[in-house]
Amino acid sequence: MAQDEFAIIERYFSNIGKPADNIVLGIGDDAAVVEVSPAEQLVVSMDTLVGGVHFPPDTSPADIAYKALAVNLSDLAAMAATPAWFLLALTLPQNDASWLHQFATGLRQTADSFKLQLIGGDTCHGELSISIQIAGLVPSARYITRRHASPGDLILVTGELGNAALGLAHKQGKIDLPQNLQEKCLLALNRPQPRLELIPFLREYASAAIDISDGLQGDLAHLLKASACGAEIKQPALPVNTWIEQQGCYDYALAAGDDYEICCSVPAGHRAQIDRWNREYPQCRLSIIGEIVESGYFLRDGKSLTNLDNAQGYQHFD
Amino acid sequence: MAQDEFAIIERYFSNIGKPADNIVLGIGDDAAVVEVSPAEQLVVSMDTLVGGVHFPPDTSPADIAYKALAVNLSDLAAMAATPAWFLLALTLPQNDASWLHQFATGLRQTADSFKLQLIGGDTCHGELSISIQIAGLVPSARYITRRHASPGDLILVTGELGNAALGLAHKQGKIDLPQNLQEKCLLALNRPQPRLELIPFLREYASAAIDISDGLQGDLAHLLKASACGAEIKQPALPVNTWIEQQGCYDYALAAGDDYEICCSVPAGHRAQIDRWNREYPQCRLSIIGEIVESGYFLRDGKSLTNLDNAQGYQHFD
Repeated sequence: MAQDEFAIIERYFSNIGKPADNIVLGIGDDAAVVEVSPAEQLVVSMDTLVGGVHFPPDTSPADIAYKALAVNLSDLAAMAATPAWFLLALTLPQNDASWLHQFATGLRQTADSFKLQLIGGDTCHGELSISIQIAGLVPSARYITRRHASPGDLILVTGELGNAALGLAHKQGKIDLPQNLQEKCLLALNRPQPRLELIPFLREYASAAIDISDGLQGDLAHLLKASACGAEIKQPALPVNTWIEQQGCYDYALAAGDDYEICCSVPAGHRAQIDRWNREYPQCRLSIIGEIVESGYFLRDGKSLTNLDNAQGYQHFD
Repeated sequence: MAQDEFAIIERYFSNIGKPADNIVLGIGDDAAVVEVSPAEQLVVSMDTLVGGVHFPPDTSPADIAYKALAVNLSDLAAMAATPAWFLLALTLPQNDASWLHQFATGLRQTADSFKLQLIGGDTCHGELSISIQIAGLVPSARYITRRHASPGDLILVTGELGNAALGLAHKQGKIDLPQNLQEKCLLALNRPQPRLELIPFLREYASAAIDISDGLQGDLAHLLKASACGAEIKQPALPVNTWIEQQGCYDYALAAGDDYEICCSVPAGHRAQIDRWNREYPQCRLSIIGEIVESGYFLRDGKSLTNLDNAQGYQHFD
């Protein structure tokens, strides 16, 4: 039986070491939370990108650097933590000065634009791989987890879904995107925008949140499991580009992954705040895609219902 | 021109992101230091082990888990920080249940014995590689760096030097160790003891300290550079086993690396405290191997002096 990444973590790594008093939240969410002072909590996460797995081998070093930092920033955004610093473990097949220069330049630009500092790490020799450990801060107990969605809550996602997967499919020659979508989809693939601007909204209104980089369908399933409830998603409400809509290829939006968007649940009483958000932050638009229910996990398209209960995100070991 | 790991870090990564007020110490020591509360500082480090580079491919999964954690603990010990929690990024060529079980069991035993908790991380698919990011705590301003050694200070090292490298050479069939040293040297290779018990001594008496896992000669050079002074090392004072002494193969002790011992400088007035330490902690014996001087970096053997100024530790990219 093939096990996916989540099963490996749950089975082998969810219970290592004696739980310490200062660990508020351990393994099992987008990041862990540690008590460091009465006023603030530290939110920490670590994500690895492996060459040929998480990015095509011909990706530019600057794009790799950007993406390695952005995927970690997206985890902090989902926890409503403000990024503070990061460490880098870089494994390289050879000491290539031009590659290193481009990578470091990309990393510097990205770190500057997101206002965080590289404070340590390691470089070594091997297959190309980039691990970044990121730390953020949150006022005490203001972090958001996957755990507290309730029936009746609205389900929201940021941005447009499926663009990164379309960009990859186009790059691989599997589909031929119209000219007007190519740039947008390649940008979504190589320069995903971590949704840091959403942090104040999440702290104020969200009951639960998750980064959906392994695909909405699978990642929302994790949120539902953690919150012990179900969901009904409305397919026509999914924010997708015209190509997906016209071709009806909603799998790109639901299952493909690599969209560094945030999915969150918000009590229905906050509709007015959602509308206000969308007027003030049109570049980080929130779409209401469905509702949290007591149980079951369905996609509704008109009168047709599809069971999403066996939903799986991107499988690292399939 | 080949550049080593330290040159890569200094050249490309030493100055990324705007320095934040809460970062007390950034890149360039065994770990970084962050201000998190008025009472305590957070000490963070990250080290990667790559299969076939940092350990032979046939190393047992439990030994790999142990070593991955131990090398990070050694960085914290050198900074005089008490370990608190860690994150794991595990990259695996396949989802092998037996390997994962043994690795997780080894990691659990190690985490338990050093009293720290795994709180997050990532698993993915690729060449075997283990990155661990570790965090420790230190009472404010009680951390130790490489920076404050002064002429006249004694230079100390813990344990015996060269055993891990001898264990590897024996395993590879390059040398044939006598029976009575085999177990000790293989243990030094696979189960290096991070010197956490030294932390109170370092906080109390050390002017500077460094983990010497890349070899005493090269790592002490880093301490001397950071402290802007020199050193004279007495070869007969180096703590080595009888085989190295008899064969005169002091390169194993000076340059080979993989000894997770601590080298520190201590003002000469603390000789009595060093003696008391050695009576109370014989399993973590401190040997006085030389003295900090104004400038120059020499190894003295009787009347012969060898210049160590071009000393290099283990080179990851040679």
